[in-house]
Amino acid sequence: MKLLFLGTGAGVPAKPRNVSSLALMLLEERNSIWLFDCGEATQHQILHTSLKPRKIEKIFITHLHGDHIFGLPGLLGSRSFQGGETELTIYGPKGIREYVDVSLKISQTHVKYPLNIIEIENGIIFEDEQFMIETLLLDHGIASYGFRITEKDKKGTLDAERLRSDGILPGPVYKRLKKGETVTLENGKVLNGNNYLGPEIKGRVICILGDTRPCENAAILASEADVVVHEATFAADSEEMANNYFHSTTAQAARLALHARAHSLCLNHISSRYLNEHWNQLTEEAKVIFPNTKMAYDFLEMTIDPHKN
Amino acid sequence: MKLLFLGTGAGVPAKPRNVSSLALMLLEERNSIWLFDCGEATQHQILHTSLKPRKIEKIFITHLHGDHIFGLPGLLGSRSFQGGETELTIYGPKGIREYVDVSLKISQTHVKYPLNIIEIENGIIFEDEQFMIETLLLDHGIASYGFRITEKDKKGTLDAERLRSDGILPGPVYKRLKKGETVTLENGKVLNGNNYLGPEIKGRVICILGDTRPCENAAILASEADVVVHEATFAADSEEMANNYFHSTTAQAARLALHARAHSLCLNHISSRYLNEHWNQLTEEAKVIFPNTKMAYDFLEMTIDPHKN
Repeated sequence: MKLLFLGTGAGVPAKPRNVSSLALMLLEERNSIWLFDCGEATQHQILHTSLKPRKIEKIFITHLHGDHIFGLPGLLGSRSFQGGETELTIYGPKGIREYVDVSLKISQTHVKYPLNIIEIENGIIFEDEQFMIETLLLDHGIASYGFRITEKDKKGTLDAERLRSDGILPGPVYKRLKKGETVTLENGKVLNGNNYLGPEIKGRVICILGDTRPCENAAILASEADVVVHEATFAADSEEMANNYFHSTTAQAARLALHARAHSLCLNHISSRYLNEHWNQLTEEAKVIFPNTKMAYDFLEMTIDPHKN
Repeated sequence: MKLLFLGTGAGVPAKPRNVSSLALMLLEERNSIWLFDCGEATQHQILHTSLKPRKIEKIFITHLHGDHIFGLPGLLGSRSFQGGETELTIYGPKGIREYVDVSLKISQTHVKYPLNIIEIENGIIFEDEQFMIETLLLDHGIASYGFRITEKDKKGTLDAERLRSDGILPGPVYKRLKKGETVTLENGKVLNGNNYLGPEIKGRVICILGDTRPCENAAILASEADVVVHEATFAADSEEMANNYFHSTTAQAARLALHARAHSLCLNHISSRYLNEHWNQLTEEAKVIFPNTKMAYDFLEMTIDPHKN
């Protein structure tokens, strides 16, 4: 599981940072990729990575501002052109369906895969055996959502050594024991799988927030998360401007991560008014509040380690 | 007057060629720029040129396929964000209005300049003292237009030396004589400006064609043009495939330029199946038919010289 930042700028594209897009790479977990936002030229950014558009399984749109959606129709078309045939689901605020439908209709883009569009509201928007995704409205003038992606806890590892020393040799029975099942062997002996499992492996939690002022819903979504990706459009000294434009500063993002007792913070959505030489200072002003902070940049890859037993 | 190619690929973006966009730079003529097509990431390509989005006065859309329009909403928004306040007019096939209106509405993009959208049909779509633009439908399955941009002939240069030797000194009268007016001087002498003008300067003609199979309307628009920009999606040996997909080959573009008695041909809209090392051969197979041929590449600038007296 890793994050691959495809666009980390704000509002308009600039040479050093493209407009918003972020890939959650779940290749080991489910051989697929989830995309968060899809600003213009996201598919162009992807050309410079190993990411395969046909592996994109879900696209989550935080809000409908152009710098977060104008790359969507092109990516949907190219995914089909490049042989993508598996189902794709888009989750986004009310209006995303009309935007996608009209763009594909007018351009006569006929995708060859099943395309679902789900207009979201607060709550759990997806759940399977592996993951749960919750969303809450933030504070950005336009409806802007944050996402909390929870990986479910997994059974501990099977202690094969102890099984062998108890005289139980590897075979199909191991698979059932690994699931914690109770198994009766051919010799009549009854084994409880749970007795051979190490401690549960806690799932990881990633919080990806749309553009927002600091708000309580952001803190709820970020609560004790392994990584919080939070916008920091402005420097700490521009709180009034951030407030006027419904954005956050570096320091506000850091205070939110602290308040939410998150494990780490990644600053994202950096205004192009801040040039390369300012980026260190922006990061530092967050770090004095929340030390485990990084600033995102285009093409940054961030591995999210599994929790240790 | 020059052409600046911003995207010269076909269908989907690839590293060497972006999707379609072409700027006609009219900085000397009217301090403005006309854009032809606006594929995704056109505004990103512009970041690597000296072109100022606020100087874009008109955008002509040949057809509504995604690789020709998906950069439009982003460019319209950024032009406003970057201080563009002058009127902008978009000309395109029926449907362009719905696409632009819905994209701007859903994304809550409020541009600060007057934006006109004109859905075009065959005929003259614009005319002023300097230029006339005619359009005709081509043959591409979807409605695809070609444009013939005619610069109007200009009065010859005023022979100031002969005026001086006739005793008429520089002053406001020169301006009237330059327009070919007949002027009565204070001393009663009557001068016909036309007698002091050199031969008329013939205007230039540029023909920019949307995606198409070879067709008679293309030849009409290209007739004796100084430059014809013609798609050449496929190599000469792929005529059947070109026909199936409503496109043209290099050789077909060359035959059209020859038939239209054009002055020069520029091959555009090159499929990404042809890599860098094929480009020379593609150009050569057009040149054997129409020698004055060039192949476009991203960021190619092509000056269109004024006609000599």
